[in-house]
Amino acid sequence: MGYGDAVDGGPLTRAHAAQLDRADRLGRFRDRFEHGDGDRIYVDGNSLGRLSHDARAALQATVAEWGTRLVTGWHDWVDLAGRAGDALGAAALGARPGQALACDSTTVNLYKLAGAAVAARAGAIVVPADDFPTDRYVLEGLAAAHGRELRMLAGDPIAPLDVEAVAAAAQGAALVVLSHVNYRSGALTDMAAITPAVQTAGAFVLWDLCHSAGAVDVPLDASGADLAVGCTYKYLNAGPGSPAFLYVAERHLPELRSPIQGWFSQADQFAMGPRYEPVAGVGRFLAGTPPVIGLAAVMAAAEMLAEAGIAAVRDKAAALTGLAVELHDERLAGLGFSLGTPRAAVDRGSHVSLRHPDAWRICRALIEHANVIPDFRRPDSIRFGLPPLYTRFTDVWDALDRLAALVEAGVHERMPAEAARVT
Amino acid sequence: MGYGDAVDGGPLTRAHAAQLDRADRLGRFRDRFEHGDGDRIYVDGNSLGRLSHDARAALQATVAEWGTRLVTGWHDWVDLAGRAGDALGAAALGARPGQALACDSTTVNLYKLAGAAVAARAGAIVVPADDFPTDRYVLEGLAAAHGRELRMLAGDPIAPLDVEAVAAAAQGAALVVLSHVNYRSGALTDMAAITPAVQTAGAFVLWDLCHSAGAVDVPLDASGADLAVGCTYKYLNAGPGSPAFLYVAERHLPELRSPIQGWFSQADQFAMGPRYEPVAGVGRFLAGTPPVIGLAAVMAAAEMLAEAGIAAVRDKAAALTGLAVELHDERLAGLGFSLGTPRAAVDRGSHVSLRHPDAWRICRALIEHANVIPDFRRPDSIRFGLPPLYTRFTDVWDALDRLAALVEAGVHERMPAEAARVT
Repeated sequence: MGYGDAVDGGPLTRAHAAQLDRADRLGRFRDRFEHGDGDRIYVDGNSLGRLSHDARAALQATVAEWGTRLVTGWHDWVDLAGRAGDALGAAALGARPGQALACDSTTVNLYKLAGAAVAARAGAIVVPADDFPTDRYVLEGLAAAHGRELRMLAGDPIAPLDVEAVAAAAQGAALVVLSHVNYRSGALTDMAAITPAVQTAGAFVLWDLCHSAGAVDVPLDASGADLAVGCTYKYLNAGPGSPAFLYVAERHLPELRSPIQGWFSQADQFAMGPRYEPVAGVGRFLAGTPPVIGLAAVMAAAEMLAEAGIAAVRDKAAALTGLAVELHDERLAGLGFSLGTPRAAVDRGSHVSLRHPDAWRICRALIEHANVIPDFRRPDSIRFGLPPLYTRFTDVWDALDRLAALVEAGVHERMPAEAARVT
Repeated sequence: MGYGDAVDGGPLTRAHAAQLDRADRLGRFRDRFEHGDGDRIYVDGNSLGRLSHDARAALQATVAEWGTRLVTGWHDWVDLAGRAGDALGAAALGARPGQALACDSTTVNLYKLAGAAVAARAGAIVVPADDFPTDRYVLEGLAAAHGRELRMLAGDPIAPLDVEAVAAAAQGAALVVLSHVNYRSGALTDMAAITPAVQTAGAFVLWDLCHSAGAVDVPLDASGADLAVGCTYKYLNAGPGSPAFLYVAERHLPELRSPIQGWFSQADQFAMGPRYEPVAGVGRFLAGTPPVIGLAAVMAAAEMLAEAGIAAVRDKAAALTGLAVELHDERLAGLGFSLGTPRAAVDRGSHVSLRHPDAWRICRALIEHANVIPDFRRPDSIRFGLPPLYTRFTDVWDALDRLAALVEAGVHERMPAEAARVT
């Protein structure tokens, strides 16, 4: 039974949500995560995912391994970035082995891959104007350093990227960087359609998977994608600032070189020879010593996701966000809200964006007076991230119910106006 | 009482070493680390330092904090890279607050700082030909990307860098990158003398502190250094692949910009504005999301070092390596060994290099038949790293004694010849 069946028709009662939880074939994964937060409803896993027992155990085991094995641990750790990359590739990215690494931050990985692509091909760099800031800033820097045009692609604030518009912007470009799921709207772009359109226009396509890896299926190999990067601290639940990942399609490995020529990418690394010569494989995109302890949590995350299966995760993401959309229509639309996320499940990732002119104060009131933890994105969006592995349908129902009740009672009107903040 | 007094005169008996241990004012720190390895003598802390109880507790506490605070933890974590940098600056680097960050890997930090320096100033890049590989490879890439000459500075394989030779090579250069302590020989270069000589020649000086931070005092501010990078997994004991650090002298912050324009360096980060504009402070050299869990161990390491005091650590480093030098002369010189480390304590860091034509097989025999863990560096060096916080004088005595006995008995002659290896 798909998740969608049980929400068809009828009023959206909490009993319906509870029925969905009972039927949830991923429901057993919730207890694999640490909660212990009583009445709190956490819907910010799109910013920082929960701690799993598996991740905690993997981190502890690796710390213990450091203590006992010391430097001899490197016999196993030396290829951990590649093994974790392969595990992510299989579980989350639709990538065959030998094309992914877990290492560095998303920002540094984007810099390495985009820098390699721009060095290999002439032309502009294209990025949507509303893409995540670090992507735009990194590309702005690379465009200036390489003397390239930076084309900012305007788009609809809610809808997925339009294939024809992206293909038009890609004409004569070296590189097009796109988010698979938009960080604000949750809109899911059709990777299988856009990838060949960009390539036909002559550019590399580099996918930012931060908001899709672990939330929806990512068809990197199947779509013929060139490059990708993403983080593991959102839907992959590997912890705050955990190692990110990168993907380079095997066919591009011979032609692409990292601008950061570090010793972990060197052929015959411990010969410590006079000249840099990168390894043939994806390891050429490593830089410094890999973060061994952090990689343990990435490996645990990939293993849990493989156990759950990304197809089931994707189905549940559609159902959870679908329930949120329906509750928005029923409970919030009359309170000044509008939906900041596509209505078609096929066009969404695993978070929904609820727009309201007073979103900042509503978000604060939710946290301080309703014990619901979402996040806010300027200018007017409240994001509800609904990671399928540990979010219940009743969590969605309760969170939206508390939100509606709070706005109906005007609780947010007593909150201070927006000031500088850090999350 | 200084450490040196007790080793003056007399035969080098184990009783002497035991006496030095009893008088060691840092002796109490040994029990702050996890050992549990029986008869094993670990002298490879120059590659990977031991696990301390403090680091384990800090890692566990931060994992627990992730589990309970989730995204709200970022209120404290958002400036953790700077706080850990300041703590390292005070404890290990001789740096006032606001000039150091703990983040990324040494390789990535070197790329950021060297890239910023080369973008800001015309001229060649200078690096010793025998410097650590990742430094040379990163600079080779930057030189090619910026169209600069890469000057490889030849040097003595044992002695510290010569001030006049470095100053001569620095003429007309943009940047000179030097290791404070050489990774192979342990030779300690005079930062206070070389820094102004390079600057007078017109270049920035960037110090690689991987083999000196936490082992000897590092006078960054006092010497007027421009830039520095280093790791925290050697003498700082923050774990395999732990976050590295960087230092930028405050006076240079306005003129230098990271080539990797990440969102964590952006002014008003969460405004997510259209254009990149870095913060005024050293935070402009952050890139992506900081590795929160790893930074907890860095903070713990800085706190322990502050408690011990870098002056005492440096004194003990001199005494430990001094004992090793004397034992070399007494026990090893007649067995085909030569000293690959400066004889004057003022010219050494905290490891010694013992050279032998059959070093590879001797190193393997030490590990497999004598339970001593050093490391090997091509072509002919066995490195004994002697981190002052947990190494006993009797460890030095026992390790050298086992080494001498093993070579006298010809145990190494039964070992296979060198093959490919990973550490």
